Amino acid sequence: MRFETGSGISNSRNSEALRGALGSSLLERYQRTRTRTLELTDGLSAEDMMLQSMPDASPTKWHLAHTTWFFERLLLQKHCAHYRPFNDAFDYLFNSYYETLGQRHPRPQRGLLSRPSLREVLAYRQYVDEAMADWLQKTPSQCLAENDHNVEHTLVLGLHHEMQHQELMLTDIKHALSCNSYGMPDHTDAVNGSADTHNLDIHKGQTYSEFSGGIAWVGAGDDVSFAYDCERPRHQVLIHPFCLGKRLVTNGEWLAFMLDGGYRRAELWLSDGWHCCQSEGWQMPLYWRDEKDGWKYLTLQGVEPLREEVPVCHISYYEADAFARWANARLPTEFEWEYAAQGYGKSGDHAGAQTNALDVNFAEASRWQPQVAEMSHGLTQLYGDVWEWTQSSFSPYPGYRPEEGALAEYNGKFMANQYVLRGGSCATPQQQIRPSYRNFFYPHQRWQFSGLRLAKSL
Amino acid sequence: MRFETGSGISNSRNSEALRGALGSSLLERYQRTRTRTLELTDGLSAEDMMLQSMPDASPTKWHLAHTTWFFERLLLQKHCAHYRPFNDAFDYLFNSYYETLGQRHPRPQRGLLSRPSLREVLAYRQYVDEAMADWLQKTPSQCLAENDHNVEHTLVLGLHHEMQHQELMLTDIKHALSCNSYGMPDHTDAVNGSADTHNLDIHKGQTYSEFSGGIAWVGAGDDVSFAYDCERPRHQVLIHPFCLGKRLVTNGEWLAFMLDGGYRRAELWLSDGWHCCQSEGWQMPLYWRDEKDGWKYLTLQGVEPLREEVPVCHISYYEADAFARWANARLPTEFEWEYAAQGYGKSGDHAGAQTNALDVNFAEASRWQPQVAEMSHGLTQLYGDVWEWTQSSFSPYPGYRPEEGALAEYNGKFMANQYVLRGGSCATPQQQIRPSYRNFFYPHQRWQFSGLRLAKSL
Amino acid sequence: MRFETGSGISNSRNSEALRGALGSSLLERYQRTRTRTLELTDGLSAEDMMLQSMPDASPTKWHLAHTTWFFERLLLQKHCAHYRPFNDAFDYLFNSYYETLGQRHPRPQRGLLSRPSLREVLAYRQYVDEAMADWLQKTPSQCLAENDHNVEHTLVLGLHHEMQHQELMLTDIKHALSCNSYGMPDHTDAVNGSADTHNLDIHKGQTYSEFSGGIAWVGAGDDVSFAYDCERPRHQVLIHPFCLGKRLVTNGEWLAFMLDGGYRRAELWLSDGWHCCQSEGWQMPLYWRDEKDGWKYLTLQGVEPLREEVPVCHISYYEADAFARWANARLPTEFEWEYAAQGYGKSGDHAGAQTNALDVNFAEASRWQPQVAEMSHGLTQLYGDVWEWTQSSFSPYPGYRPEEGALAEYNGKFMANQYVLRGGSCATPQQQIRPSYRNFFYPHQRWQFSGLRLAKSL
Amino acid sequence: MRFETGSGISNSRNSEALRGALGSSLLERYQRTRTRTLELTDGLSAEDMMLQSMPDASPTKWHLAHTTWFFERLLLQKHCAHYRPFNDAFDYLFNSYYETLGQRHPRPQRGLLSRPSLREVLAYRQYVDEAMADWLQKTPSQCLAENDHNVEHTLVLGLHHEMQHQELMLTDIKHALSCNSYGMPDHTDAVNGSADTHNLDIHKGQTYSEFSGGIAWVGAGDDVSFAYDCERPRHQVLIHPFCLGKRLVTNGEWLAFMLDGGYRRAELWLSDGWHCCQSEGWQMPLYWRDEKDGWKYLTLQGVEPLREEVPVCHISYYEADAFARWANARLPTEFEWEYAAQGYGKSGDHAGAQTNALDVNFAEASRWQPQVAEMSHGLTQLYGDVWEWTQSSFSPYPGYRPEEGALAEYNGKFMANQYVLRGGSCATPQQQIRPSYRNFFYPHQRWQFSGLRLAKSL
Repeated sequence: MRFETGSGISNSRNSEALRGALGSSLLERYQRTRTRTLELTDGLSAEDMMLQSMPDASPTKWHLAHTTWFFERLLLQKHCAHYRPFNDAFDYLFNSYYETLGQRHPRPQRGLLSRPSLREVLAYRQYVDEAMADWLQKTPSQCLAENDHNVEHTLVLGLHHEMQHQELMLTDIKHALSCNSYGMPDHTDAVNGSADTHNLDIHKGQTYSEFSGGIAWVGAGDDVSFAYDCERPRHQVLIHPFCLGKRLVTNGEWLAFMLDGGYRRAELWLSDGWHCCQSEGWQMPLYWRDEKDGWKYLTLQGVEPLREEVPVCHISYYEADAFARWANARLPTEFEWEYAAQGYGKSGDHAGAQTNALDVNFAEASRWQPQVAEMSHGLTQLYGDVWEWTQSSFSPYPGYRPEEGALAEYNGKFMANQYVLRGGSCATPQQQIRPSYRNFFYPHQRWQFSGLRLAKSL
Repeated sequence: MRFETGSGISNSRNSEALRGALGSSLLERYQRTRTRTLELTDGLSAEDMMLQSMPDASPTKWHLAHTTWFFERLLLQKHCAHYRPFNDAFDYLFNSYYETLGQRHPRPQRGLLSRPSLREVLAYRQYVDEAMADWLQKTPSQCLAENDHNVEHTLVLGLHHEMQHQELMLTDIKHALSCNSYGMPDHTDAVNGSADTHNLDIHKGQTYSEFSGGIAWVGAGDDVSFAYDCERPRHQVLIHPFCLGKRLVTNGEWLAFMLDGGYRRAELWLSDGWHCCQSEGWQMPLYWRDEKDGWKYLTLQGVEPLREEVPVCHISYYEADAFARWANARLPTEFEWEYAAQGYGKSGDHAGAQTNALDVNFAEASRWQPQVAEMSHGLTQLYGDVWEWTQSSFSPYPGYRPEEGALAEYNGKFMANQYVLRGGSCATPQQQIRPSYRNFFYPHQRWQFSGLRLAKSL
Repeated sequence: MRFETGSGISNSRNSEALRGALGSSLLERYQRTRTRTLELTDGLSAEDMMLQSMPDASPTKWHLAHTTWFFERLLLQKHCAHYRPFNDAFDYLFNSYYETLGQRHPRPQRGLLSRPSLREVLAYRQYVDEAMADWLQKTPSQCLAENDHNVEHTLVLGLHHEMQHQELMLTDIKHALSCNSYGMPDHTDAVNGSADTHNLDIHKGQTYSEFSGGIAWVGAGDDVSFAYDCERPRHQVLIHPFCLGKRLVTNGEWLAFMLDGGYRRAELWLSDGWHCCQSEGWQMPLYWRDEKDGWKYLTLQGVEPLREEVPVCHISYYEADAFARWANARLPTEFEWEYAAQGYGKSGDHAGAQTNALDVNFAEASRWQPQVAEMSHGLTQLYGDVWEWTQSSFSPYPGYRPEEGALAEYNGKFMANQYVLRGGSCATPQQQIRPSYRNFFYPHQRWQFSGLRLAKSL
Repeated sequence: MRFETGSGISNSRNSEALRGALGSSLLERYQRTRTRTLELTDGLSAEDMMLQSMPDASPTKWHLAHTTWFFERLLLQKHCAHYRPFNDAFDYLFNSYYETLGQRHPRPQRGLLSRPSLREVLAYRQYVDEAMADWLQKTPSQCLAENDHNVEHTLVLGLHHEMQHQELMLTDIKHALSCNSYGMPDHTDAVNGSADTHNLDIHKGQTYSEFSGGIAWVGAGDDVSFAYDCERPRHQVLIHPFCLGKRLVTNGEWLAFMLDGGYRRAELWLSDGWHCCQSEGWQMPLYWRDEKDGWKYLTLQGVEPLREEVPVCHISYYEADAFARWANARLPTEFEWEYAAQGYGKSGDHAGAQTNALDVNFAEASRWQPQVAEMSHGLTQLYGDVWEWTQSSFSPYPGYRPEEGALAEYNGKFMANQYVLRGGSCATPQQQIRPSYRNFFYPHQRWQFSGLRLAKSL
């Protein structure tokens, strides 16, 4: 028996579409994304933007510069004639991990870059933005046509790259501010007592949607305007019958797990997870606090009382896996998740998605929290609340071909030891949200907006 | 569309078969396996048998005691009335990793157990062996019938457990002896020059067998007399067209990779692999030596000149993956491997398999090396040379159910961060060799007899 | 035989002197010191002032706040009625290491204190300075008289404490800026060639002054207006005949040591030093750079060509010790140094000392470098160039009594594993410079302005 | 004022004495010492003798070989014509730390030397012993006379070196066996209750002997038959009035310190000590156990109930220092100790000393424990119970000259970061015991028989 894989020439159709409206729409999208990045920093000082609290995270200022470097290094320097780099030294400072693009400033020391100043980095952004505008407006035919679809593709990739960093800016600054006992407001008085007013239906326990499985298509196809290389090729998988929790696991359910000794019972844990739990002294999700007057957690707005009906967040893969075992369930595979999510119409460009995702700035962060599930006959909370851990190791799809050149390092070299998360969080830009998106992190990492949805085999 | 998974009651048929011949055949298998373990230690001193050169490895003496403890703790103490443990303290000393069976002696300090002495451990083995013989001979009807098939199953599991440790005894002592510049014989003079007499055909490059893929059954079914829980349930997978190298990658090919800068070119490596390669200072496979008069390596027989036509061995997943990328190929998935191997008649109990596997003792270790491939129109070297890294993360099969009780920890809790190896090495007991066998190790580990076979998508 | 130790009541005489001029002179000294601290930050941005490049060092902003906290916590809160702390949270943030004053923000994470902002810290300084001025001006009789000399003593101690931090601000920011390839000016072109114009007399080799030894008084006596507890009691020591290098060891001499294999010859090193040298990969002093066009080093002004005639600086005790052994000499003991220095009239308050010490701000850092020795018949460069490592472990003097209360932790608890440095560097405030001053650091530390002078036994 | 130092030619007189009786007495001493070493291993198996529980400690077998290597490498190979080394490979395996004698097997991996076997190491000892006997008997005039006193001196040094290793063999095997829950006998039943029968006078508190101080001679002079280079030159020091506890601090007193929060009160500790205490989780001396039925500790005989009247042992410098501070006392300097001890007639070769020191084998270890103090008007327990921590950093005496050649590394390179212990323990060979002996260890180390005696300044 033979069967088809997805189109090998993955970007052929949409690159044509893009080329049609190049002069205006691409630039407009560029400017909207770039502006959005800066809006996110509203309320942060230059000092805040220098914080790096762990090697995994980067300073806000570094994010601002690195995303700019991406356009300068991979587009302007390669394709725009006569472009002069803003500062030759920045190539060393703001290359993230591209071995093929040369040496880099050590990742764990990004917080030591007091120089260039924020002011200088903002000037760098403006310089590159102007060059990009100039280039896109004046020479679309020369520049974009001649270079085939690669230039357009790289530009769109750069926008999605920047959107990924928008989310990282939020998770990184949240972690950094959590390391300082001073400076985050305390909202626990104002909302005190609200923990009791939750939707009781949520606590009646999980209900599941059943899926019969079979041969299914997964991955990004030609109808998707943008996707990373790791989402391709679209291909068929065989899915066994399973069911999926209609909603995300909540803080209240997590408390029950904790009260039942979840963090002390080795039999619930993977071996590596148990060692991690013990060596790190985990007793609750990241940012939770067990205080005299009740459970609290740190949000991007400050310290708040724990809301039991809200999806649990900031947990590692190991914790998610242990919880699932405690609940006589398991984590879904990434294909089960994608197969189930396909029924919920979030393909395409998600224009109408009802998500919580990234549309406020740091000073108005109230919505950067997962929301309570609405009552539904089907699956809810697929997008825009928390990233959902799956049991799937991040690995190449059959026939996977990395991007060419330096961009081959974008995803491919991380295909080991990391686990796929699906969906999208309250901090994820809406345009990043699609059924085929494969986010990935190490199983011990907790600083992302990561939660879980239960699954079972039938 | 619905489809069938393998039998959920995985051991029903063969447990009946076992029960028929219990009194004699089970005991005979038990004794043969136990004797084999001791034979392997021939040529090792009590001092050698205490060596622990890293936390991953254990002393030979500890292996001897732990495999004995397995039968004592999970069979005799549970099912054999009136059995008195040899020594109550051994439960703490020789439990490996079973959290549900209590506290354990710290794994990295197994080399500090000068007491009990080897003599005492051998007496322990004899004591348990006699109790087992007594129990199996005198009370088969009472003991084995009443406890259903669990007792038989656990006993057979214990034998396979012991066979796994037989292989580990060899890999562990090899590593330990490699840490001492003294005491291993040097055979490089005797065989000098043989490196040039290799089969030239081997160097004409890889040839591949093509497989059309489709829906295939994988995992252990009822026809398999024994399999670990992680090999079950037998289930269907969808396999995309691929081809597989007819033979294993050789030392000569690995040298070419090295000469082409394989260990210095970041672009060939996974990100984690590259960091590991640099921090560990890898420049060649484990046990290789770059000496003035040519390449050599340490074998269980001593130091020998490198033979280019022999399969490469003692490489990590990261190295295997980098080599495959260098060769414009990739590692196979575990299901591609199993699907391809099924055509080669190695199912059942492999009574007639032409493998090199474990049938000599330590003092006659000449055959504990992978062998040169024979010419063939199909796949060769599937079994008995080296374990073959696959790109598959070790994870549960759909509908996976762990063993019950403490044995649930046998495989299930290791299903994270490790990669599956298939086939079986020159140090693997023949009865361990079957198409569905899933060996697993961390991607940085190199002290097993691990090599690779290339694959490509079609 | 009996003999006298120094006065146990160490501050009795000078406290009287202080009390006479309290209203004006103390406040004036306070304000001068506090102003000086701020002047040092001239040229540094808020971002620069957040840098912490290693646990040993602290951000400039933290120094600004901690020195303020010292006066608030140990004077205003204890002795000034009705004083209200600026911010209760600062006690946790800016306590350095006083266990008796409660929990503290983790030392390695001082760089994560983006909040309070620099602006807020400056307001804190102003608030405390005003309170201090108010308190000292309005209530000298009530406040200072009633509390005996303790208040005056603590205030003066606070000033010296602040002066110590003035020096640390410079060494810490120098280290932090050295971790960033960007932002420090390069002066190697401008001064190129100057390396050849050095004073040749310097290179004629060391000459020594001889000292006959005998019983000598060391430590701070009543005639010293201020000294730390560890400098007391003044007591007698027996000094054996020795000689002392007339000047400091130079960069040129250090180059000779390097060229002679100094960093590769184990026999020159202490065992701990050799391990440190190898594990850290030392090959030259900190901040030196071996570049194509010659040796250079980083100064607080930027990168400069190495000047051979200038005292070597930024070396560890281990390196100093190895150099001395290479030179057939040894390091002096702290008492040899003090005994020799006493002949050079630097006692008292050193009003007229011709030192290079701290009298410029960061933006005019040209003088923060050790200077070339002048020709002399006696010892030169005792003060104001580099701290001089001695072979003396930092330990209590006979009859040592720590300060009372929290201040007991000021010096006493560090009397293990550290070595005494004598003299004072180009970054040391002049008022800190006196023969009895005992600076101390761990033998592996290099980021202070530390150098050496040779000694020999006669 | 001038004064005399001790003789620079430190060994001149005693080398003559030795030369007189060379043929017989030196060989006799050699054989007695070598035999004694082997006697100590009585009761240990070849497996026991392979144990290495930490990098600081070495396997018994390694001690046996290394002490032999010392004679082979530094005497036979250098001075005995026609001597053929037992095995050329041993030079790499059994060199301890002599950089000038070439590369060495890594210290932390001495426990991996299963080969050579114990049997082979014993043959090595016999081979070298026979060569030494042959050499000393047949050619005393040629060999010893021609090489001046260096040969004799090295030989005697080798004997003292071996005696040092005799003590280390005991402390190292004690530590190794303590890491195994199995194999050491439990004597807590037999002697139960004895903890109450202690000498009550001991608990009436410390009494002190007063010393007026003055100029004193310290270090080894010509009258001492043997001393290490670090004990020389004999020289004068100035000692201030002090008093010294008449006996050692006891377990009972240590319990009082513990009950008073000694291990929880930061203010009692040096800063480095407090960090060590917390990171290591110290709560009691090494080898103590807080069990349901009372305090116990591990001795070389097995587990025993704690005896309160016995000197406390197996404490670090940090603990000793904290205890002293708690007791309103301090540790003595090494010169205070030596000055005080000189009055107790333990100079010379201590033939008649009433010590507990090393005169039993491992199988009869009952006396390898510190003993209860006897009533006395003066100092007791100076020798043969526990090594006494002093506050003196291990540093060179004025005019110190290391041994020549490789032996320069014997003591000199360790003169940093270590503290001097004086006296001698129950495991110290009697011939090692003398007032000028300077033992030294790092302040965190606890596995030696180390305790303390209190001191105060007057």
